[in-house]
Amino acid sequence: MISIIPIPELPEFHQGMNIGDEIVKKFDLVENDVVVVTSKIVSKAEGRLVAVSSRSDFEKSVLAESRRVLRRRGEMMIVETHHGFICANAGIDQSNVPEGQIALLPKDSDRSARRIRDQIFAKTKVKVGVIVSDTFGRSWRRGVTDVALGVAGISAIIDLRGTLDANQRELKVTEVAIADEIASAAELVKGKASQIAVVVVRGVDSSYFRESSVADEVIRVPAEDLFR
Amino acid sequence: MISIIPIPELPEFHQGMNIGDEIVKKFDLVENDVVVVTSKIVSKAEGRLVAVSSRSDFEKSVLAESRRVLRRRGEMMIVETHHGFICANAGIDQSNVPEGQIALLPKDSDRSARRIRDQIFAKTKVKVGVIVSDTFGRSWRRGVTDVALGVAGISAIIDLRGTLDANQRELKVTEVAIADEIASAAELVKGKASQIAVVVVRGVDSSYFRESSVADEVIRVPAEDLFR
Repeated sequence: MISIIPIPELPEFHQGMNIGDEIVKKFDLVENDVVVVTSKIVSKAEGRLVAVSSRSDFEKSVLAESRRVLRRRGEMMIVETHHGFICANAGIDQSNVPEGQIALLPKDSDRSARRIRDQIFAKTKVKVGVIVSDTFGRSWRRGVTDVALGVAGISAIIDLRGTLDANQRELKVTEVAIADEIASAAELVKGKASQIAVVVVRGVDSSYFRESSVADEVIRVPAEDLFR
Repeated sequence: MISIIPIPELPEFHQGMNIGDEIVKKFDLVENDVVVVTSKIVSKAEGRLVAVSSRSDFEKSVLAESRRVLRRRGEMMIVETHHGFICANAGIDQSNVPEGQIALLPKDSDRSARRIRDQIFAKTKVKVGVIVSDTFGRSWRRGVTDVALGVAGISAIIDLRGTLDANQRELKVTEVAIADEIASAAELVKGKASQIAVVVVRGVDSSYFRESSVADEVIRVPAEDLFR
């Protein structure tokens, strides 16, 4: 059984704050918990808020965060970010940030996840997985879901190659994006308007814990991409 | 808090079997549980297994289940199915089905979900949500995740339009694909080689329960699709 547990009453985050410390003040983590941290508070703690005064400022920020624009529709641009993520408006938004500011995505969410993991370990000596998550749309399905932008200590992808099915035949679909599934699971206790920015997912299969990276394992290189 | 609970020891399913009955024999459901049923056992119960004797038979089945082929790579075709799903090989695969057979997706997974919901209610008088799930790839990210092919009694999408953020500003991202997130959460206790075909997700926000449909709410019409 897996449990999905919100951590309420975390403080408002500002540049320089230690996210791991704030989490362990509020919640008793145990080994192999996965701590899912919404990228918005990581952006705040890492000083990734930017002042904007106009729509044109916003567009400039989107373009500055992007390698290229894939599609436009009205005010929405689907871009490839410098990280390699394909998403709307380079993941920039204004919700839950002070008036007149926008939050850029963390520069390197795998590194941010490792930092939070290390902060938690330094205080508690408990080994957990950390996922930095955000909310992205999908090409073929309406609605958004939460996905992993960065991971530490937990697999981004598990590889089931060589695994046999119930009839002892080798599985063909072999790579499961479990960090994205955990991020989606965590979203279910968030509610977009609530203050829940950190969720603990407890009971994840212990074989899923290892060093990993979204940048290396999840982002498709253009050569293998059929739709870009 | 949300709990994700696998139901072990369900029987092998064959055409005509009552999935709801088998579930309630093994598990005590409570109101507002969400029962996530892998489409493979729905296909089996609905007689959607087909004999194939060659690679060419398999390709014919994929094409027969598809409106059109969007991309090909080696033996893999990305198609738009008659339901409107964009997925590899029309969702057809051979894992966990008898040698020499393949499983087609259910004809109408919303209807399948409603049938299972009604079977459960008939036996127990307990109102649950039901999701029929399958495993799909994504355009921009490596790895597969589980998504909802059909729903009954639980929202496919929740609409947060008009919701205010922590700073009392209206949210812009407003449609969350919670049925896909619940399907992904359920996958975390499955493991591809295990016999876990049904998972209960308990504790989902009670406001998410209503009549809904993946066909109506999740499938993008080509006119709003930027990448087809």
